Amino acid sequence: MAPILVVGSVALDSVKTAEGESREALGGSAVYFSLSARQFASVTLVGVVGKDFPKRHRQLLDGRGIDLSGLREVPGKTFRWVGKYGRDANEAKTLETHLNVFAQFKPHLTPTQARSEVVFLANIDPELQASVLSQMRRPAVVACDTMNYWISSKPEALKELLSRVNIFFVNEEEAKKLTRQPNALRAANVIGEWGPEVVVIKKGEHGALLKVGRKTYAFPAFPLESVKDPTGAGDTFAGGFMGYLASCGGFSDLAHLKRAVLYGTVMASFTCEEFSTARLETLDRCELDARFSDLVERISVPVDPVFIAAN
Amino acid sequence: MAPILVVGSVALDSVKTAEGESREALGGSAVYFSLSARQFASVTLVGVVGKDFPKRHRQLLDGRGIDLSGLREVPGKTFRWVGKYGRDANEAKTLETHLNVFAQFKPHLTPTQARSEVVFLANIDPELQASVLSQMRRPAVVACDTMNYWISSKPEALKELLSRVNIFFVNEEEAKKLTRQPNALRAANVIGEWGPEVVVIKKGEHGALLKVGRKTYAFPAFPLESVKDPTGAGDTFAGGFMGYLASCGGFSDLAHLKRAVLYGTVMASFTCEEFSTARLETLDRCELDARFSDLVERISVPVDPVFIAAN
Repeated sequence: MAPILVVGSVALDSVKTAEGESREALGGSAVYFSLSARQFASVTLVGVVGKDFPKRHRQLLDGRGIDLSGLREVPGKTFRWVGKYGRDANEAKTLETHLNVFAQFKPHLTPTQARSEVVFLANIDPELQASVLSQMRRPAVVACDTMNYWISSKPEALKELLSRVNIFFVNEEEAKKLTRQPNALRAANVIGEWGPEVVVIKKGEHGALLKVGRKTYAFPAFPLESVKDPTGAGDTFAGGFMGYLASCGGFSDLAHLKRAVLYGTVMASFTCEEFSTARLETLDRCELDARFSDLVERISVPVDPVFIAAN
Repeated sequence: MAPILVVGSVALDSVKTAEGESREALGGSAVYFSLSARQFASVTLVGVVGKDFPKRHRQLLDGRGIDLSGLREVPGKTFRWVGKYGRDANEAKTLETHLNVFAQFKPHLTPTQARSEVVFLANIDPELQASVLSQMRRPAVVACDTMNYWISSKPEALKELLSRVNIFFVNEEEAKKLTRQPNALRAANVIGEWGPEVVVIKKGEHGALLKVGRKTYAFPAFPLESVKDPTGAGDTFAGGFMGYLASCGGFSDLAHLKRAVLYGTVMASFTCEEFSTARLETLDRCELDARFSDLVERISVPVDPVFIAAN
């Protein structure tokens, strides 16, 4: 089982949704990713917090087996995000962003961290993602995510980064914007030409597309009756996806990649059920496997072997 | 193989999309449904056209084996619809609706038609759907569709109808509106309580949900690089779904219902590839089976038998 290094944000989020609200709760892309991936593999988190970062959050992550040797604490305040969701839980509206100590974040990897076999560069400045990647010693798998802000402000740096990446996670609307294509499938094809062997287009409650080679595979989300707080669902998806792949030891097997989508889907569905990281904190492997099994039942179609043979 | 009776509109559509336009082309819910369902079962179309309905359209449908004994021609003009789609091909904007002879449509079934085992009541006035249903002699399967207009204007008549229906097809937004639920899954549950054993929530390019008993299954759409004209995709979906079920001879087998979703999905994807019914006119069973096989490959996930056994 290959250990995973994740570089990204650690934040205190204040979120309002149709189902309630949370204030200064644990959040950030690296946190959601880690709490998800740790179900499958060992995870080292690289990030930065301020002096105000609650001890209990550090204890929580440490208690879940996440290696915090790369989580620096520096003078100043922790990154804060304030957002809300309407009845359509698919899109967040950012009300406030206070980068605080995150504005000066320049990760320097230790020799041990640099030898990680699997690395996930969460949605930070693509130049910073590239600088982290340059510190790595021959990682077997490099994956990254991004966000609208970087697509608008640093598209060239992002494309440059993508030429060095194996797996790219991106939201449907962001993929269309980045490639200037009106269609998710065409967007995935264009991104594939830039470098990533695997492109994962995330569609929120509508599931995900997985592009491997020339072919695109499609998956629905896990049907949920209520979404309390979708914050972190995308990072949790990536955590389940990469965690499962790390446990398989590679990303060249299509069956592994398809199952990785399902594990990502399952993990994201748990995240949405409670505010902040609450559901991920208590989740055990038994519940996770039960939902994986449930998801398989909900999406699988028994077909005549003639149709499978034709592939 | 049970024969299918479909009651619905026959129209001349003028459509503008991002990919081009069509003028006074063959359309209407009963037409799309029939051209799709005839791939799987024999279909009798019940509808009305005016004196201006082009002979070539009648010949086209007749040439595809669709029984037109129930297609009446009356003095006046054929139903016309004018609509357009933006870059987001998911939602049509209606520019003009001229009901013409369709305004007086009151179907009277012949004794042979009334003995059909499978009936699809396309999206016409729910009171008219109910009156057709009352003329039927013990159909084995009753399915219907509806649209926003009837949800707004005759919600009680629609609910009354649903108590007599086995399978209900409805768009996601329409299901939420009809049930006043913010969530597709909850909407399907509420509709299920009103009567239909099977509820199919159509999500356009995002696929479909299938509710059977207490469980909801989820399916993506077939990934398409371009959508020329999505008009009729929903009716074509229903045609593939019902046509396949009719060929199975029942709707109580979950595996049949899941495969019916895939056949509906495949048929809808063909419809979107050309304007009007052009793609459906030339489609043969061999192309259809090839795409079914392709879809199965794109959505199926090989899993450890332990997860299947758990179900």
